[in-house]
Amino acid sequence: MKQVDGGVCAVKGVRASGIKFGKMGLAVIAAEGSAAGVFTRNKIIAAPLIVTRENLSNNGNGRLAAVIANSGNANAFTGEQGITDAKKMAHILAEQLNVPEELVAVASTGVIGRKLDVDWISEHVGEVVEALDSTPDSSNAAVRAIMTTDLVEKESAVELESGVRIGGIAKGSGMIEPNMGTMLSFIYTDASLPADVLEKCLKQSVDKSFNMIVVDGDTSTNDIVLLTATGASSVEPQVEEFQMGLDHVTVDLAKMIARDGEGATKLIEAQVKGAKTENDARIAAKAIVRSPLVKSAVFGKDPNWGRVIAAVGYSGADIDQDKISLTFASGDDIVLLVECGNIQDSSTGVLSSLENIMAQDEIIIMVDIGLGEQSAIAWGCDLTYDYVKINADYTT
Amino acid sequence: MKQVDGGVCAVKGVRASGIKFGKMGLAVIAAEGSAAGVFTRNKIIAAPLIVTRENLSNNGNGRLAAVIANSGNANAFTGEQGITDAKKMAHILAEQLNVPEELVAVASTGVIGRKLDVDWISEHVGEVVEALDSTPDSSNAAVRAIMTTDLVEKESAVELESGVRIGGIAKGSGMIEPNMGTMLSFIYTDASLPADVLEKCLKQSVDKSFNMIVVDGDTSTNDIVLLTATGASSVEPQVEEFQMGLDHVTVDLAKMIARDGEGATKLIEAQVKGAKTENDARIAAKAIVRSPLVKSAVFGKDPNWGRVIAAVGYSGADIDQDKISLTFASGDDIVLLVECGNIQDSSTGVLSSLENIMAQDEIIIMVDIGLGEQSAIAWGCDLTYDYVKINADYTT
Repeated sequence: MKQVDGGVCAVKGVRASGIKFGKMGLAVIAAEGSAAGVFTRNKIIAAPLIVTRENLSNNGNGRLAAVIANSGNANAFTGEQGITDAKKMAHILAEQLNVPEELVAVASTGVIGRKLDVDWISEHVGEVVEALDSTPDSSNAAVRAIMTTDLVEKESAVELESGVRIGGIAKGSGMIEPNMGTMLSFIYTDASLPADVLEKCLKQSVDKSFNMIVVDGDTSTNDIVLLTATGASSVEPQVEEFQMGLDHVTVDLAKMIARDGEGATKLIEAQVKGAKTENDARIAAKAIVRSPLVKSAVFGKDPNWGRVIAAVGYSGADIDQDKISLTFASGDDIVLLVECGNIQDSSTGVLSSLENIMAQDEIIIMVDIGLGEQSAIAWGCDLTYDYVKINADYTT
Repeated sequence: MKQVDGGVCAVKGVRASGIKFGKMGLAVIAAEGSAAGVFTRNKIIAAPLIVTRENLSNNGNGRLAAVIANSGNANAFTGEQGITDAKKMAHILAEQLNVPEELVAVASTGVIGRKLDVDWISEHVGEVVEALDSTPDSSNAAVRAIMTTDLVEKESAVELESGVRIGGIAKGSGMIEPNMGTMLSFIYTDASLPADVLEKCLKQSVDKSFNMIVVDGDTSTNDIVLLTATGASSVEPQVEEFQMGLDHVTVDLAKMIARDGEGATKLIEAQVKGAKTENDARIAAKAIVRSPLVKSAVFGKDPNWGRVIAAVGYSGADIDQDKISLTFASGDDIVLLVECGNIQDSSTGVLSSLENIMAQDEIIIMVDIGLGEQSAIAWGCDLTYDYVKINADYTT
């Protein structure tokens, strides 16, 4: 497996394009194939997700031909009108591309509870479709079109030993604690795989990647991840190989989202091992990266490691405080702070080692619960003045 | 029922005192009676809580004679040494007051994972005991001694129709999402009630008050609430009357904690009704006041009400987006934003009314889920630059 450039356009036959005017943006990706999706578990489900899920599972029989996605308005909590508007988005793209409407996926991101300006989309869809291309720049244009508070364009692609390619784009920066999905991510492969295999692989991959990041603990109404397999390579890869490649792309994109969390200056990786159950490992790792106190301490480079222990304690995971070990690391620096419940003697210089680590851009927090064999990794970012600033005046 | 001054010293026979030097503080409250307590559900339980719980349930047979509490060090995650130190705190106060050691409760708040300076406590306990008094000032000295990042002294007391008084103090500002308990709160009454009745009343009261506040969603290792009934009034009140008075005091103290959340400028009250179950109402109300996005919007006076809907959506409560109604209020101002899933027409000036409300100090967010009869109220505060500032350099 090697990393390649080009985002979704690293995959043969995938065409993309996008435009952005102020807060409004419109992206289109075109490539037909078998497809699978995962969607937000928020009980308020945005209209475009309702339409896409219906198309994917019933009307389109597990196939997609294109995605149309807008930024600037989430089309969420918009009732029947929202459904009508989301269907209209699918309809106008289907007409432009001359594909069946039920093969079009729709996604939106932006303010919740406002009527979508579907006229704006109608007016601009023609020029976006005209610009569809399969260059790396066109993948980049698509991702830029769906960015909101994101500062970084999130693209990742790999080529497997079998020659199969997998490439994806993602957006997401705030309202990030995905639960079966994240803010928009569109992934493509030229592998030849049926929809049911894609769905299984995607669910497994999302559980290790997008579902393991937290920016602020708010789960969006609009989270969606779609995976389309065009079959253009005519290769049917081993599922294990495909899963590994897919995991690489989704974890890569998920980490980009965590690092680009609103106002973030640092990436936090929480590695939990020794848990009794996989769920224990997952909830403990996520509690660490979700804790506003841990996040603030990382921002302030404050070696306040007791907050990590407190977070693991309230996470719900089964623990025994005499079994826990805690280590902080960054690059080649590593410092053991607690070993089986015993705090390391501070006279050995552990706190100054910890201060060095806290000054780095990527902080790895390793917790060994010491009760079992299960492990999990979660990613998050620090909590900064800029997070507050960005979210104190989002709509105004 | 009427409110009275004096905190714990509003209750006849209760003596209190406290001192504070820099970050270290020491408070003592003396009054013997039947007693009950609730403790953190964090699985990392601080040493003083382990000792107090043991004293209260086994050794002391549901009685307490005094409380000793320090700030500056949580004595949490401190192993066997921590237990020894907490027992020593109980021992030295017991000697000073000439009461059995097992009738002394111990509490601590401050940094986690550092050895307690029990010598400092030994050195100062004498002067604190000497200053014990039953004036309002002495209750105030006790609460000041246990404050950490708190800016406001939290005291509340009432006198019931029956003449019974209930008075309490509390501290708490950060690491606040109590779960059966909150940062330290000590409540006294001169009612004549046995420990089992006190325990039942206290649990019920804590569920409506301290368990319904969120500052940052971090549950402390040191949360403790104690209720002692001296019986000095010789009145055995009706349990319903006592419960009402106790609820008044605990809700009053809980709201003070929420309003005094680290860096907070505003109090947020989330009232949820129409839920199918009481748990649904509780988790929906708490999700609103926990959401960093709602909290940031309140700080920035941003009328971004869609974030409230999103929070209710991911709370886990059963909802139907066509049944939800949403109202914001403050003082006499009230604005209906969503009625049974329908967004109010923005041309009627609802957004400017909402902006007026968002500019107030106390914001009430009312959600009617529209599916049942259950309700709950939760309290929180806004998320500000100062929250980040306070927590970015807590230990340094």
